[in-house]
Amino acid sequence: MRVLITGGGGFIGQKLARAIAAEGVVAGQAVSGLTLVDIAAPEAPEAGFPVTTLACDIADPGAVNAVFEEKFDAIFHLAAVVSGAAERDFDLGMRVNLFGTLTLMEAARAQGNCPLFVYASSCAAHGGEAPETVRDDTPANPQTSYGAQKVACEYLVTDYSRRGFLDGRSLRLPSVTIRPGKPNAAASSFMSSIFREPLQGEAANCPVGEDFVIWHSAPRTVVRNILHAAALPAEAWGTNRALNLNGRSDTVGEMIAAMTRVAGPEAAARITWTREPEIEGILEGWRAKVDSARGRALGFETDESFEDSVRWFIEDDMARA
Amino acid sequence: MRVLITGGGGFIGQKLARAIAAEGVVAGQAVSGLTLVDIAAPEAPEAGFPVTTLACDIADPGAVNAVFEEKFDAIFHLAAVVSGAAERDFDLGMRVNLFGTLTLMEAARAQGNCPLFVYASSCAAHGGEAPETVRDDTPANPQTSYGAQKVACEYLVTDYSRRGFLDGRSLRLPSVTIRPGKPNAAASSFMSSIFREPLQGEAANCPVGEDFVIWHSAPRTVVRNILHAAALPAEAWGTNRALNLNGRSDTVGEMIAAMTRVAGPEAAARITWTREPEIEGILEGWRAKVDSARGRALGFETDESFEDSVRWFIEDDMARA
Ligand SMILES: NC(=O)c1ccc[n+]([C@@H]2O[C@H](COP(=O)([O-])OP(=O)(O)OC[C@H]3O[C@@H](n4cnc5c(N)ncnc54)[C@H](O)[C@@H]3O)[C@@H](O)[C@H]2O)c1
Ligand SMILES: NC(=O)c1ccc[n+]([C@@H]2O[C@H](COP(=O)([O-])OP(=O)(O)OC[C@H]3O[C@@H](n4cnc5c(N)ncnc54)[C@H](O)[C@@H]3O)[C@@H](O)[C@H]2O)c1
Repeated sequence: MRVLITGGGGFIGQKLARAIAAEGVVAGQAVSGLTLVDIAAPEAPEAGFPVTTLACDIADPGAVNAVFEEKFDAIFHLAAVVSGAAERDFDLGMRVNLFGTLTLMEAARAQGNCPLFVYASSCAAHGGEAPETVRDDTPANPQTSYGAQKVACEYLVTDYSRRGFLDGRSLRLPSVTIRPGKPNAAASSFMSSIFREPLQGEAANCPVGEDFVIWHSAPRTVVRNILHAAALPAEAWGTNRALNLNGRSDTVGEMIAAMTRVAGPEAAARITWTREPEIEGILEGWRAKVDSARGRALGFETDESFEDSVRWFIEDDMARA
Repeated sequence: MRVLITGGGGFIGQKLARAIAAEGVVAGQAVSGLTLVDIAAPEAPEAGFPVTTLACDIADPGAVNAVFEEKFDAIFHLAAVVSGAAERDFDLGMRVNLFGTLTLMEAARAQGNCPLFVYASSCAAHGGEAPETVRDDTPANPQTSYGAQKVACEYLVTDYSRRGFLDGRSLRLPSVTIRPGKPNAAASSFMSSIFREPLQGEAANCPVGEDFVIWHSAPRTVVRNILHAAALPAEAWGTNRALNLNGRSDTVGEMIAAMTRVAGPEAAARITWTREPEIEGILEGWRAKVDSARGRALGFETDESFEDSVRWFIEDDMARA
């Protein structure tokens, strides 16, 4: 198994790389090499097999072809311009999220070995005409350019898979909280920062009310589910390679209460509550309740509590920092 | 109103051009000029305003930009590599149906006037996981590359519209029967040829059984509905610019009986019945029953009978030939 991760320097990319390094197995087969690409060459995890890290703009076909001088058996495509950034800069989003993904799919196809291709789509696929609770048969109706670009690619991933060019699996990820590091350009950035900053003794603003509902999953769970997506047989996916990945619905208030139960009351007191209409505008277009019956049937994991997410953040990220 | 039709030399493009020439009005405004583009410069209808015909490969950005030296208020985007051809030649389908459409949308956006953009999508958007009767809230699950390319573009048309780059409306057309001329590379080609050839004294083969159900609409109705799509206010479309256009479900047997009622029994006797598994394979992935409640509510027309389609073919096409 030669494995490629795009966006390998990002939040999920780094955690996925460390998980693959630790387990040494992808889709039931021993990993013989791991390549991480990102705009700048990412940090390499320690591993029992060679790890290559490369700077590669996935929207540059020449750079992508250079990466594909090696042949991969499994590709985890995580590189993306996230929601807020793609909304502010439409052309950049199209360039990376649509054309970059297509460039990568063409490179994967040109290998001729029908590689596994796990694509990180987003629950931002839903909104607009979607009912309050999204089901497996709810049509995507994204209300951001980011979401539209993701959904367009999902359809092409499914078609490339039907044709045998690659073996695709698109996961519409919930908001992955708690994200370590700095706030980012995602409209959902606060869904991590209102826990991350207070847990580390800093203030953070919550731009929505306490009763705002968040559709979320912990990084550990998401990484396990991404690896599970790769391990499932192609037949399990049927004619639709895109899936609303399992997650949890909790209000901001419930999540803060969970943080308090794990880490004491000081953290919550550091949250400020100034509403931000621009963010609320984007979030209004999203959905916060998803019934992922298909994901459960396919054996994807669901978080049991937000307490776990808080504990894992303290163990995995605060300990590392 | 300066109007552009891509695929203006094709079946629907020519009929739409003649309808616009005859009516002189698009979206309630007088037409001041009509441009038809196709791979080869199309035939121009007689009109009370200037008609320009140009050869332009829509997948060639230079050629498209040359066409857009003029500014358009309404664009009817009909150019496409049809289902059978896009299935046989994947790269050609991607080039024209996906990248060509994107090139055109970019040119429309660059005008800066948010032009009307009516996009001919297809009921081939449905299949796979779709229930037997497709409803307005049935997610697209195309089983051809053609269908996947159309759906990917629908999502981008909706997003370009949300952003105010153009004012898009995507219609998933039923099989448009009876198509004049020669059989084409669409898997649905027989849905016209088993009527067209026999009505004109020639033999034609039906590759499916008499009880095969077809989701169809007459060219006259489709052209009226395309013009209606342009005339509706943007608000009528809400957050989803794609629509399952009205049509009719009839079995091949019922449609042949309708032809016999209009034109006598000789025609039907000219049909041969050799099954063609390759075509049946593609058609199995389609859906033949669609409940277009939203289309009816928006005032799109529905054919009252297939007899009308036979009569209109005799009046409009056999008379012309
Ligand atoms: N984190 C979430 O809550 C969440 C939710 C839904 C979907 N997703 C999706 O999951 C994936 C990973 O998310 P993340 O949170 O790790 O994001 P991230 O921003 O931390 O990582 C994405 C990485 O992609 C890289 N990248 C951007 N443009 C690139 C280009 N042109 N070429 C190469 N690399 C490029 C960035 O440098 C970044 O390191 C993304 O596709 C994202 O859309 C994430
Ligand atoms: N006729 C139907 O039953 C039906 C059903 C569903 C959807 N549609 C859609 O409606 C539209 C019109 O269909 P039609 O039946 O008139 O098809 P058609 O094949 O008769 O016309 C399409 C035209 O597009 C032109 N074209 C192809 N590639 C081109 C390119 N690169 N640049 C410029 N022009 C190009 C062709 O030369 C052709 O004249 C198409 O988009 C088709 O997918 C048709």
